[in-house]
Parts: sequence; structure tokens; C-alpha cells
Amino acid sequence: MTHIYNFSAGPAVLPKEVLAQAAAEMLDWHGSGMSVMEMSHRGPEFMSIYKAAERDLRELLAVPDNYKILFMQGGGLSQNALIPLNLLGHKPEGATIDFIHTGSWSGKSSKEAARYAKVNIAASSTTSVPPQSEWKLTPGAAYLHMCTNETIDGVEYDFDAGVPAAVDGVTLVADMSSHILSRRIDVSKYGVIFAGAQKNIGPAGVTIVIIRDDLLGKALPICPSAFDFKLVADNESMYNTPPTYGIYIAGLVFQWLKQQGGVAEMERRAIAKAQLLYNALDASDFYETRVAPANRSRMNVPFYLKDESRNEAFLAGAKARGLLQLKGHKSVGGMRASIYNAMPIEGVQALVDYLNEFAGQK
Amino acid sequence: MTHIYNFSAGPAVLPKEVLAQAAAEMLDWHGSGMSVMEMSHRGPEFMSIYKAAERDLRELLAVPDNYKILFMQGGGLSQNALIPLNLLGHKPEGATIDFIHTGSWSGKSSKEAARYAKVNIAASSTTSVPPQSEWKLTPGAAYLHMCTNETIDGVEYDFDAGVPAAVDGVTLVADMSSHILSRRIDVSKYGVIFAGAQKNIGPAGVTIVIIRDDLLGKALPICPSAFDFKLVADNESMYNTPPTYGIYIAGLVFQWLKQQGGVAEMERRAIAKAQLLYNALDASDFYETRVAPANRSRMNVPFYLKDESRNEAFLAGAKARGLLQLKGHKSVGGMRASIYNAMPIEGVQALVDYLNEFAGQK
Repeated sequence: MTHIYNFSAGPAVLPKEVLAQAAAEMLDWHGSGMSVMEMSHRGPEFMSIYKAAERDLRELLAVPDNYKILFMQGGGLSQNALIPLNLLGHKPEGATIDFIHTGSWSGKSSKEAARYAKVNIAASSTTSVPPQSEWKLTPGAAYLHMCTNETIDGVEYDFDAGVPAAVDGVTLVADMSSHILSRRIDVSKYGVIFAGAQKNIGPAGVTIVIIRDDLLGKALPICPSAFDFKLVADNESMYNTPPTYGIYIAGLVFQWLKQQGGVAEMERRAIAKAQLLYNALDASDFYETRVAPANRSRMNVPFYLKDESRNEAFLAGAKARGLLQLKGHKSVGGMRASIYNAMPIEGVQALVDYLNEFAGQK
Repeated sequence: MTHIYNFSAGPAVLPKEVLAQAAAEMLDWHGSGMSVMEMSHRGPEFMSIYKAAERDLRELLAVPDNYKILFMQGGGLSQNALIPLNLLGHKPEGATIDFIHTGSWSGKSSKEAARYAKVNIAASSTTSVPPQSEWKLTPGAAYLHMCTNETIDGVEYDFDAGVPAAVDGVTLVADMSSHILSRRIDVSKYGVIFAGAQKNIGPAGVTIVIIRDDLLGKALPICPSAFDFKLVADNESMYNTPPTYGIYIAGLVFQWLKQQGGVAEMERRAIAKAQLLYNALDASDFYETRVAPANRSRMNVPFYLKDESRNEAFLAGAKARGLLQLKGHKSVGGMRASIYNAMPIEGVQALVDYLNEFAGQK
């Protein structure tokens, strides 16, 4: 069989070493006689798995002690509701939430939040992150929500340029679903960071929430208790039965990341992989990209064939070469290559070779 | 190693055949070059897995065509909020929900529902299901909620005696988390059936909702869209990224159930296993059970040592014989043996042998 490279935006490629270990341990985890799927979530075996996963993620992201890490269910989409349900309890009726709109995901987030509060779009663009100096923030807003990497649109915040800078007295909420663990972040800038697992963490069905202690205990009375951040935090993510097997796989991914050199090494590789791909796209007049260079995502690379009548032929040729799931999201069309942590540079090189080959056939 | 029998109440034992197949397919599902965990949820590979799982569950439970099957996240606990959030949209302010209280889970459900509506406990007991003739129902109630098998208290509805009978004009909502697929049910009696997966279905992190078509589209405006039953139904459980790997395992369990003879065969085995265990408990004056015989659960068997000072010795001896996770829930104490579909009768026999042996040591 051709070597497969899977460019899916998520659920996405996982490290082969992780999958191999999971297969080997499937029927009997560490001599327990049980699969991880069969363990009581409160038993000593699973608790050891959970605690190691929490500890490793805390180390990888340098999460300060005054933040809790929650392993929840519901996906990133659910957090669009659960964040306001959890943060607005101490706010007056008619509180406003500010949003920076940079694409599909921050757009969805703002629409969902409108069920629970007034919404202000403080800045908007889907091809760049508007300069922070132009953000029209609401004085006294409940919080400021941003999606620091737009999976569909391929717009990523330029943390190295200092965006977002601290905003006095404003709680920052960041959806980092599709670039968490791919670059160093300063957790202390944020009130809440959340991420669906199915890109850089593990299987779909686990959602990570990192929240500063003082933001706990502010849920609205209508917040379902299963999703009340304080109850989840007070019970070490076991107020409800957690998605145990997904947490186990996430824990194996965290161990793999540490063995590979941690987030700094992932960032180095992400820069190298992204440069390789964007350079190839820029060098050809056969393809185009639409995101401002400073905000090109290192994880999700949307691109377009200038002659879109060739799209199907492009995808068929890619598939024949083992380059899978390159079709762009239906809402924006074109192509998209998602090159998460588990994508080796050899996969990106194979894609670049194919880009050049296909352009040469025209 | 001693043969292990895992009596956990959930997450719980799974069929060995299912785990072996999952291990074998972990790195390459059916020659796709991908793990199921790595597949886009909307791609043809995972869609084929999803559709087979839905179809097999529909066949196993004889779900009528006018019901939708949803594969959701959040666990059974979350449904205590999501059911009222989804069913009360067309009801007047101050609607009442009736509950039959038979133990811990129906108790939790009623407390959570009180966030969204008035609650009436129409009948209450934690050692039996109150006779339906004594239920004090509210005229015009939004719906009637029951937990047809109480995992902690070991109280199960006696469907064979016709409880619950149809109640004219009342929508029945049933939490079947811990006995679904262990006995034949008449789905058409119910408006909504829900079940966390981690007992008889698959890994924690998947929640099944079976809902009659006419109950869709009645969500309150405050219902998070990720958990809006109509949006989930209209998108074949893919409005949000679903817990793909858990659905795959559930699908393997459904295939296993069909190979074993389906739900009727599971019911036959459940009756045999439960009789074996209750007979042994009844025959000894060393143990006691507290649930009325007609409502003894076939799945969750709580029992007590009359001399509770021997509890630790009992559990230690059990563990030494490979009989795991027999400690009762902390809220009720004592012991509990959960004997779900995947528990072979040999495991129950091993427990019975140990019960007799330990009683003989007194």
C-alpha cells in the first residue's frame, strides 16, 4: 500500500507510536486484566491515567498553579454556549460579550453567545487578524472571545507580534482548538482557553478547558450541572463519568510530545512545515492563498487552484498518491491541508512534490 | 494471571471479541491506512461505520421508523438537563414535570429538572417501583420521567407485569442507561429513551437518545445548539463532531450482540445470571438484599454482609480471586455486582462460589 498522509482538519492524524501502544494495551492495561475502556473512572488504575494526563498537559503548556484543567465532553462547539453559561452568573442582565471575528469559528461562537448576552463584534476580517489598535471593545464587557486559529479560514494570531496584548481588566477567552500544543503560549494572559481534542490532542469526544480559579463558581442557574465548570473542577473532571478512553489516548499523545521535545520542538517543526508548504504555493502561479502572510496558519493551510475546474482532478491525483482529505471546507471551497503535530515533514514534502507535479501538467 | 471478572457498574466489562477486533484494526481500518480515530467524521469511511451502528441498534431494539436515534456527548447526567431544555419549548411558563422516584438516578434527574420547570414527585420508593395505580400524576404535565433501572439502588421496572402501562396523553421519558439492550422493550411506549453508553453499549463518552419525531423542534431558546436534539437529528449526529471512536466501539458491540442472538438472547442470559446470583444470596443468612423481589435488577445487584465489619475482608478475598470492583456505591454502602451483557455466566458462578466460600469462613 502507498504510504498514507492524512491531511484531515479533524479528527486528524495521530502519532503512530500512540496508536501502536493503544493497540498493544487494548485487552490488558499494565497487567490489570482490563482494557482502559472497562475501568471504573474512580478506580486507582484510571485515576493514575487521569492524573498523569493532567500533569503532563500542565507541564507541556506551563499552566500556572492558579488554573484548573478540565477534561469535558461536548466538543468545541458546545463551549460556545458553556462559556457564557459559566461566566455570566455574576454579571448584570444585559451584559455584553466582545468578539474578534476572524472566520467561521469565532462567527459561530458569537452567534451562540447571543442566546445568553448582548454581543459586540469588536473587529472583523476573515483574511487577517485586525490590528489590536482597531478593536472596538465595550467598556465593562463580560469578556473578550477570540479564536486564535481559525480551522476553516486558516487565520492564526501572530503571538510573536504580541497579539493579543494584555487588555486591562478584560478577561480573554480563547478557542485554541486547532493550534493548541503547536506553539508556546502564555496561559496567564487568558481567563479561559478551550480546545476540542480532535486536532492536536487525541480522539473526538474530549474537550479541554483551562480556566483561572477566580472565574469558577460564576455559572448561571440555567447551566446544566454536568457542564458547570466549578463542579467539574471540584470533582477532578469526574462529576460526570468522563470520556475515559479518549483521556487515555490524550495522555499517550502528551507523553509522545514530551519525548519529542515538547511544545517548543513542535513549534520549530510547525514553522518548518508551514514554510515548506507556503513557499511552494507562493512560488507557483497555479495556486493562490488568501490570508495575509502575518496571519497564515501553521496548522490549517487553505489554498485554491486558480483554475477551479481542475479541483476534482487535483483531488483524485492526490488520493492516488496517498495524500488524503485535502478538500476544503464546503463553506469556503478550494483545498485545505491540515498539518498538525502528528504530520511528519515527509508528508508535507510529499504534498509539495505533488503540488509541483500537478501544476506542471497544466 | 488469575482470570479476571470485572463487576464494575460502569465503565464496565466489554466483550473480549470486540476489544480484540478494535486492537487488530487500530492502525489500519479495513485497508484505509487510517485508524478510526483519525478519520474525518464526514468522510465515507466513518459514515459507513456510523450508519451501520445506527442500523444495528435500530434492529436490536426494534426502533420504529418514526423515532430518531442520536449519538451524543455528555453522559446520562447531562440528559437530566438536556431533556427539559429540549422538550419544554412549546410549554407554558411554569410547566410541571412528573417524576417516579426509585433511587439515586431518578432523584438526580428531578433535582436537575427543577432548574427549568416545576417538579412533582408522583411516587417514591428506593426499594421497589411504586404500583402505577398509586402514581399521583399532574394533569397536563409536560412529561413523565422514570429511571427504569436504578444502577445504584438495584431497582428495575417489571416490564413483564406491564409497568409502565401506557398513560393516556402523557409523554414517557425513560433513563435506561444501565439495562438497555438487556431485555426487550416496546420503544413505541416512550417519547424519549436515553442511555449513557458505558454499561451495555460501549465506552464512556457516548450517550444514546431515541426520540419520537414529533418531540423534535421543541427546544427552549437557552438550549445550547450542540445539544439541540433537532439539530443533532437533522445532521445525523454530526452537527458537532461526534465521539467517533466510541461510536465505532458501540457499533462493534451491536454486531457482537446480533451474533450472540440479539436482545432476546441477552434477556434469557440476564435472567439466568440474575437468578443464579439472587438464589445464592437468598440461600445464605450471611448476606441480605433490600429490594422487593419483583423489582430486583437483573443488571445491578446490591447486597450487604449482615456483619459489615467483614466488608474489607470480603473485598480483599474477592480481589485475590480476580473478582473486581464489587464495592457498593459510597452513597449506599455494602456490595454491588453489576452483571451486564458482557459478563459471562462463568463470572457469576465464580462470584457465587466465592459468596459461599466466604460465608462458610465465618
